[in-house]
Amino acid sequence: MLGSTHGTLTTNSRHARVAACGRPPGPAVHVHGRSAAAEDVDVSGRPLHSAVPDLDRFFRPESVAVVGASDAEGRPNTGITRQLIAWAERVGARLHPVHPSRSAVFGLPCVPSVADLPEPVDLAVLLVRDPLPLVEELASAKVKFAVAFASGFAETGAEGAAAQARLSAAVRRGGLRLLGPNTNLNAFEEFREDLEGPAIALITQSGHQGRPVFTLQELGIRLSHWAPTGNEADLETADFISYFAARPEVGAIAMYVEGLKDGRSFLLAADRAARAKVPVVAVKVGRTETGARTAASHTGKLTGSDAVVDAAMRQFGVIRVDGLDELQDTAALLARARPPRAEGVVVYSISGGTGAHFSDLATAAGLPLPTLGAEKQAELHQWIPDDLSVANPVDNGGHPVGDWRGRKIIDAILADPSVGVLICPITGPFPPMSDKLAQDLVDAAEETDKLVCVVWGSPVGTEAAYRTTLLGSSRVATFRTFANCITAVRAYLEHHRFTAGYRSPFDDAPRTPSPSARKAQALLRPGEQLSEHAAKQLLRAYGIRVPREQLVTSAAAAVRAAGLVGYPVAMKASAPQLAHKTELGLVRLGLTSASQVRDTYRDLTDIARYEGVELDGVLVCQMVERGVEMVVGVTHDSLFGPTVTVGIGGVLVEVLRDTAVRVPPFGEDQARAMLTELRGRALLDGVRGMPPCDVDALVEVVLRVQRMALELGDDLAELDVNPLMVLPRGQGAVALDALAVCR
Amino acid sequence: MLGSTHGTLTTNSRHARVAACGRPPGPAVHVHGRSAAAEDVDVSGRPLHSAVPDLDRFFRPESVAVVGASDAEGRPNTGITRQLIAWAERVGARLHPVHPSRSAVFGLPCVPSVADLPEPVDLAVLLVRDPLPLVEELASAKVKFAVAFASGFAETGAEGAAAQARLSAAVRRGGLRLLGPNTNLNAFEEFREDLEGPAIALITQSGHQGRPVFTLQELGIRLSHWAPTGNEADLETADFISYFAARPEVGAIAMYVEGLKDGRSFLLAADRAARAKVPVVAVKVGRTETGARTAASHTGKLTGSDAVVDAAMRQFGVIRVDGLDELQDTAALLARARPPRAEGVVVYSISGGTGAHFSDLATAAGLPLPTLGAEKQAELHQWIPDDLSVANPVDNGGHPVGDWRGRKIIDAILADPSVGVLICPITGPFPPMSDKLAQDLVDAAEETDKLVCVVWGSPVGTEAAYRTTLLGSSRVATFRTFANCITAVRAYLEHHRFTAGYRSPFDDAPRTPSPSARKAQALLRPGEQLSEHAAKQLLRAYGIRVPREQLVTSAAAAVRAAGLVGYPVAMKASAPQLAHKTELGLVRLGLTSASQVRDTYRDLTDIARYEGVELDGVLVCQMVERGVEMVVGVTHDSLFGPTVTVGIGGVLVEVLRDTAVRVPPFGEDQARAMLTELRGRALLDGVRGMPPCDVDALVEVVLRVQRMALELGDDLAELDVNPLMVLPRGQGAVALDALAVCR
Repeated sequence: MLGSTHGTLTTNSRHARVAACGRPPGPAVHVHGRSAAAEDVDVSGRPLHSAVPDLDRFFRPESVAVVGASDAEGRPNTGITRQLIAWAERVGARLHPVHPSRSAVFGLPCVPSVADLPEPVDLAVLLVRDPLPLVEELASAKVKFAVAFASGFAETGAEGAAAQARLSAAVRRGGLRLLGPNTNLNAFEEFREDLEGPAIALITQSGHQGRPVFTLQELGIRLSHWAPTGNEADLETADFISYFAARPEVGAIAMYVEGLKDGRSFLLAADRAARAKVPVVAVKVGRTETGARTAASHTGKLTGSDAVVDAAMRQFGVIRVDGLDELQDTAALLARARPPRAEGVVVYSISGGTGAHFSDLATAAGLPLPTLGAEKQAELHQWIPDDLSVANPVDNGGHPVGDWRGRKIIDAILADPSVGVLICPITGPFPPMSDKLAQDLVDAAEETDKLVCVVWGSPVGTEAAYRTTLLGSSRVATFRTFANCITAVRAYLEHHRFTAGYRSPFDDAPRTPSPSARKAQALLRPGEQLSEHAAKQLLRAYGIRVPREQLVTSAAAAVRAAGLVGYPVAMKASAPQLAHKTELGLVRLGLTSASQVRDTYRDLTDIARYEGVELDGVLVCQMVERGVEMVVGVTHDSLFGPTVTVGIGGVLVEVLRDTAVRVPPFGEDQARAMLTELRGRALLDGVRGMPPCDVDALVEVVLRVQRMALELGDDLAELDVNPLMVLPRGQGAVALDALAVCR
Repeated sequence: MLGSTHGTLTTNSRHARVAACGRPPGPAVHVHGRSAAAEDVDVSGRPLHSAVPDLDRFFRPESVAVVGASDAEGRPNTGITRQLIAWAERVGARLHPVHPSRSAVFGLPCVPSVADLPEPVDLAVLLVRDPLPLVEELASAKVKFAVAFASGFAETGAEGAAAQARLSAAVRRGGLRLLGPNTNLNAFEEFREDLEGPAIALITQSGHQGRPVFTLQELGIRLSHWAPTGNEADLETADFISYFAARPEVGAIAMYVEGLKDGRSFLLAADRAARAKVPVVAVKVGRTETGARTAASHTGKLTGSDAVVDAAMRQFGVIRVDGLDELQDTAALLARARPPRAEGVVVYSISGGTGAHFSDLATAAGLPLPTLGAEKQAELHQWIPDDLSVANPVDNGGHPVGDWRGRKIIDAILADPSVGVLICPITGPFPPMSDKLAQDLVDAAEETDKLVCVVWGSPVGTEAAYRTTLLGSSRVATFRTFANCITAVRAYLEHHRFTAGYRSPFDDAPRTPSPSARKAQALLRPGEQLSEHAAKQLLRAYGIRVPREQLVTSAAAAVRAAGLVGYPVAMKASAPQLAHKTELGLVRLGLTSASQVRDTYRDLTDIARYEGVELDGVLVCQMVERGVEMVVGVTHDSLFGPTVTVGIGGVLVEVLRDTAVRVPPFGEDQARAMLTELRGRALLDGVRGMPPCDVDALVEVVLRVQRMALELGDDLAELDVNPLMVLPRGQGAVALDALAVCR
């Protein structure tokens, strides 16, 4: 049943786009799930919803077949079979070995083929070299889920990718769901059942890389699921995000990802997690070429443009971290901590040095460390000597933690309404002090709903205060380094801020073309780069202001145009496919008289003739000078489709590449957030006596360009508004030049 | 004896400066050590050498007095006395308790005062509330070293700082050396004697913050010394750096620093370590205001401008890290690893995912990961299946590590001449594989002089392969996180690159004033801001090019000047103390005719009259347009004195603050390195069809400005060349405007 509508929506969405734009769309849009209906696509034909796959019977099957089961000494399948039998026993599933020539495996009756299974099984584990020939048989036997361990598919190159595509198609036809190929036993590991509280659910594209998160169970952190997605011929990372986000026992999703199968399905899954307020923490390989290349040879996935992946994650609140240690610590904190009662972080320490160092790093990372009020400080000085600072960080000098005062201090800090998080870095274990301190922190954490964090800084980590007292508490979040504590607490505060204000952009995404779309569509020239004039018409169709300008084909017309446009004017050669206008001398600015205009017209046409450029005319344009030059553009990402970029313009920023990118759909909040990501953001606020810019107009242009990107879709290969002159507040923004390439 | 020349050089250096410049200098320059001679100062009067204090008898005294010793139950001094007795026994020192009213302490004969000591002691530990009254007595008794635990000095504010200054002066007069006040027992801890190999020497300004590095001994890392410097009334961080750098058993110096007592003595000590090729790894608090303020209330030190401290450390090869975990890991690696045989890093892993992830992070951090040659890859494929990539990262797929092939692979990688470092990240402990892998790595490391690193990624850390096999090896560097391994290996490669090419800037620092100095000195106006014209004369005195320009006081003279300078010209109002010329409309560019010049002269003088600015005239200047605008300047740092800054000019970079700073003295290499630190560096190489700039001329200007900063010293409070127009290669650089403030 599941997956039976595969492909249906793709067709629907194509129809939608053809109807809207009159031209066939680009690459197929892929939709999973059975409940999506025809209207669930946006104007670009991309889905607005994804179904949550029901994976209950995958993780908790009632019956399992092991195809290729073995108990022969020394065969790799023997070890796997043994582990699967043990796992089936633990989860209470009936296990049926399947092997063409054995009558029993490890004492269990064995059938020769899937067709001979005594019951329809929930899950078939395929320990065969080539799973493809089995798929039809599995489908006939009504098997719901299959897992394929075999490797040699997309990770090996083009031939393997073709084999994987065949497997993928067969699975889709068969109506079952497949995990793998190139996956492993991780989903069927032994999970500790004795741990309490919200759990981490784990998704990995490498078993070895998931191991440290799994091992967190030995430190008392509960893990509920592990999905090793392998090559994702069918079930993909997004499916597991959606499923886990809906499970009540899951407090956070931790992921190790090398590449994504489909950008849109990932966004829809992340959106689901954001709506459910379930944090997703991810390590994503591909910051560098080396990483991208190596990842491709591992599970055969494209890593995508890292800047785009990064932006997409940020848009939907996915917390990206670099290291597996950060993944563990951040996911563990986010899974277990309750929402913050306040944003204030207090650093509490038995050493002034530790307080100074920790608060230095925490402040640099943007954590809010409020100064405690005078009354609270006076209260703390009841127990802490007066010469120590208790403003935040609170330095107790050591001695008070050894007696009854220790707990009083902690409780007094936690009682402050400005405090949401108490962090106690204990860099040096000194049992007479640190044992009592650890116990007090654990006890206090039991009686508050505020977050209590401890950094156990000893490099040894076998101390009882750490291993028994702190790790024994599910209420204290314990870290080993300042940096990981700060990363996790920042993610914690940001996650709750983000989800509290989250509004899904899919709810507001345009479903039908705007009146602009048909006008714009008529201007496109498939496969060509438009002339500057035509590109500006495209912008005008979407209500983006361009300078007063006329395209003229004679010197006399140029002079007339200049009179209408108003002096001073700029003149530019206009032609399709024309690049590097400025470098060729085909742009002239600040012309102030009819004679200059006449001479310039001749100059430009002479140069064009000399350079062999066939002009469609010369543009006579209004000069617009007083503003900040920005760039706004559209490019296509292999994973996510069209993306919108904004950046600061001019030669210097060409060097600095100061840009921000977003994946549609996004709302005004994200368009504004893009601007805050620019290092040169202050330029827009006015510097050196310049007035503040019309930021609202800039935001509006970004949103209109997004609309254009969605409506023109793959027909518009590239758009580059450069410069967009953003005028002083209230005066708007004007696109002085534009480049548009059609597909 | 030690310290007996305190102050002598200060006087000498003052004389040197007065002779050179004809005016008294600013704050006293402080020199430690007895061997420095009068000629050992640079042209600014700052020392060019510091003596290495002989601290042998401090760390290994033959006799110790404990003043304020106690064995009374419940007194804090009792515990300290007990620890000191145990320590004296361990190091074989005779211990003499001193107390006015006891005849014996813990069974040891007790004398009433220092004067009554039975022998001249090497070290006196002062457990008294106020050490000041004791100092004279200690000096008379020929005590070499004292340690003062008492707090309540500079860390408490102005009154405490005055008390500390009195203590400091008394110690200097007495000729002994003092550690503290506000220090502790850390120097007299129990160090493990059974560990071998080069050791870490530790310097801290907080006992608690040093504890994790000290605790490394439990992981098998040798520690030789711990200097808890406290408030540094006498002995300071720099003294210990110099001393440790000269000790043969010290492989690396690890520091936790909140503030520096004196910038120059720190630089001289760091220089000493760089010459000795002894790495110095430092955590330095003060990245943020919060950190700086908190540090001040802890040990009463100024943290200095963080950007300047950061640059100073980089100039002298001090490796700055953020976390104590990084401090431990980096210092441990640098102490023990031999110099690299090659720079290439190979990542070797049992999982393709781990290889992809690690190499992604390593490449992003700038580690060089060479692709292994075809022959080496073929060799590795003897043991590793062909479908796995062995180019680097080397992915063995897991199985080969379990048998005889495991060691072959490691040896084959290490035998490659391009390889200097092998890193094996083991994220998931799986004893059948990882135990053998760990042992193979340990064995291979014994037989190579190349660096072998392991990341033990399990969060548990109690596994035998980690705790026994890996930590039992002094040849394998073991880490717990990818990030710390990458940080340490990068520091390792950089340290050896740096020291191999190190040339001390103190060897080349100017000792006598240049001919420019006297010319420049005559232009200074104490306490005033010079007019633009005068500031440019200052630059000219140092051979820095300024535009052709004339200062005129009538419209007619302006027209004559314009004729001489050559049209087009710029005109600027000129006056001392004049700021914001552009904003006031007192700068006009691109004047092309005599009538424009005449009108502009009147305009400028009208505006000046209206604004109440008393002009010394109007500058008529040559226009210089085709180049890149840079800024070069001098400011004064509270710790380091004059510093030189270079940055990219223009409005945008005012927003981005894209600058680099250096502390004199520095050579041409550092002047060039400053430019590579600029994010907009590519501008200088020519972008968008611009020609490459005259970088050599820019470097020359930076060096001339440094010379000016040294020679004019504190008399020049501030210099700002903005813009310095750097012309195309071969054409030089011209200072278009300059601001100079005299003290």
